[in-house]
Amino acid sequence: MVALNNNPHRAVVEYQVRRAVYQRLGRPLPRFAAAPNPLVVNVSARHCHLTEAAVEILFGKGYKLTPFKWLYQEGQYAAKESVTLIGPRSRVISNLRILGPCRNFNQVELAYTDAIALGFEIPLRCSGDIKETAGGMLMGPAGFFEMPVGVIRAMRHVHMHPDDVKFYGVKAGDEMKLKIGGSCGLVLDRMLVRADPSFKLEVHIDTDEGNACNLQPDTPCELIN
Amino acid sequence: MVALNNNPHRAVVEYQVRRAVYQRLGRPLPRFAAAPNPLVVNVSARHCHLTEAAVEILFGKGYKLTPFKWLYQEGQYAAKESVTLIGPRSRVISNLRILGPCRNFNQVELAYTDAIALGFEIPLRCSGDIKETAGGMLMGPAGFFEMPVGVIRAMRHVHMHPDDVKFYGVKAGDEMKLKIGGSCGLVLDRMLVRADPSFKLEVHIDTDEGNACNLQPDTPCELIN
Repeated sequence: MVALNNNPHRAVVEYQVRRAVYQRLGRPLPRFAAAPNPLVVNVSARHCHLTEAAVEILFGKGYKLTPFKWLYQEGQYAAKESVTLIGPRSRVISNLRILGPCRNFNQVELAYTDAIALGFEIPLRCSGDIKETAGGMLMGPAGFFEMPVGVIRAMRHVHMHPDDVKFYGVKAGDEMKLKIGGSCGLVLDRMLVRADPSFKLEVHIDTDEGNACNLQPDTPCELIN
Repeated sequence: MVALNNNPHRAVVEYQVRRAVYQRLGRPLPRFAAAPNPLVVNVSARHCHLTEAAVEILFGKGYKLTPFKWLYQEGQYAAKESVTLIGPRSRVISNLRILGPCRNFNQVELAYTDAIALGFEIPLRCSGDIKETAGGMLMGPAGFFEMPVGVIRAMRHVHMHPDDVKFYGVKAGDEMKLKIGGSCGLVLDRMLVRADPSFKLEVHIDTDEGNACNLQPDTPCELIN
């Protein structure tokens, strides 16, 4: 299997075309085109982050993850490897995708619909904040790995470069809103701002949020303070 | 099995207690307490409506549905009977609840998360508007019933009595918003107003919408024009 060379996100192409058109016409840029970066909104389906040690237990000694699809954030990928998550009532989710590269903690991110199907009680947490959360059992081709904690619903959030933070007038830890249009549109309140010089402007919502508004590549989205 | 005598919805009790307290204190009623009726918001999990003919094919000649749980709208119930829905890729949803009483059309209402799991392409429709929608196969203990059309995602909507329509200053077919609070709150735009003298004020959202905002019985909700 070869890692895919992704096409650019539709929002990125639209942003570039619109800027070019406004500049060509000599018109002032409207706010969405004046922003330093295109707004990309992606739905994160259920997935997990694993340590190298957990990967070795699940897949075998010395095993390394293989990138399958590059994600929008630099260096992040969906691995070709997946695991089976076994819930407290022995119900399972198979093909739980692993996102790479490895981290220094183990974490499973589910939507509430997934958690209810599995029989998990999961808290809403910022990624990495897994103290006193539910655990679970992962199964891979080489073995089982028990996570004592780490099953969460990730808080909806926006990754921002310092240029974006400045343009939108916010700071890390603030909350913004995301307005999503279309025939079943909605406004997501309380979207956490995460900022880092390595980040590209991108909102991550889960499958419940994405399906509640039927988010498609051409659905209009707007960040609101 | 005996039909359950439901407890009143928390929103109904809160509304009555608040009104009583304001009146006791001789204070003017705030807007939510001045409204003619409590605002009840309920999540509709996937379900189906069937004709009497379909029930007989699925459960046997002369079979009648048995009420299992009364719903908030007068005379409506979740039946003890459920069916299995078979999707286009032979994936199934078992225990698809039937809501009674029988109607004069057959309709399956799924969330997009359900539809994606089954491999259905389903449109967003107002209940009853099922022309040119996907069909599906239902399986019951006595037989199979093929629906040529009728699998939809129901548009989010609010049932209103004429008193509610008057208080909120809207009319049937209008769209309102529903603001849902809490740690992952959101505002649902484009919520269809349905009005009838037999209706009690109640918002119906689906499991994707309910899980996107983790709707609980004590989550604050507000109707907005």
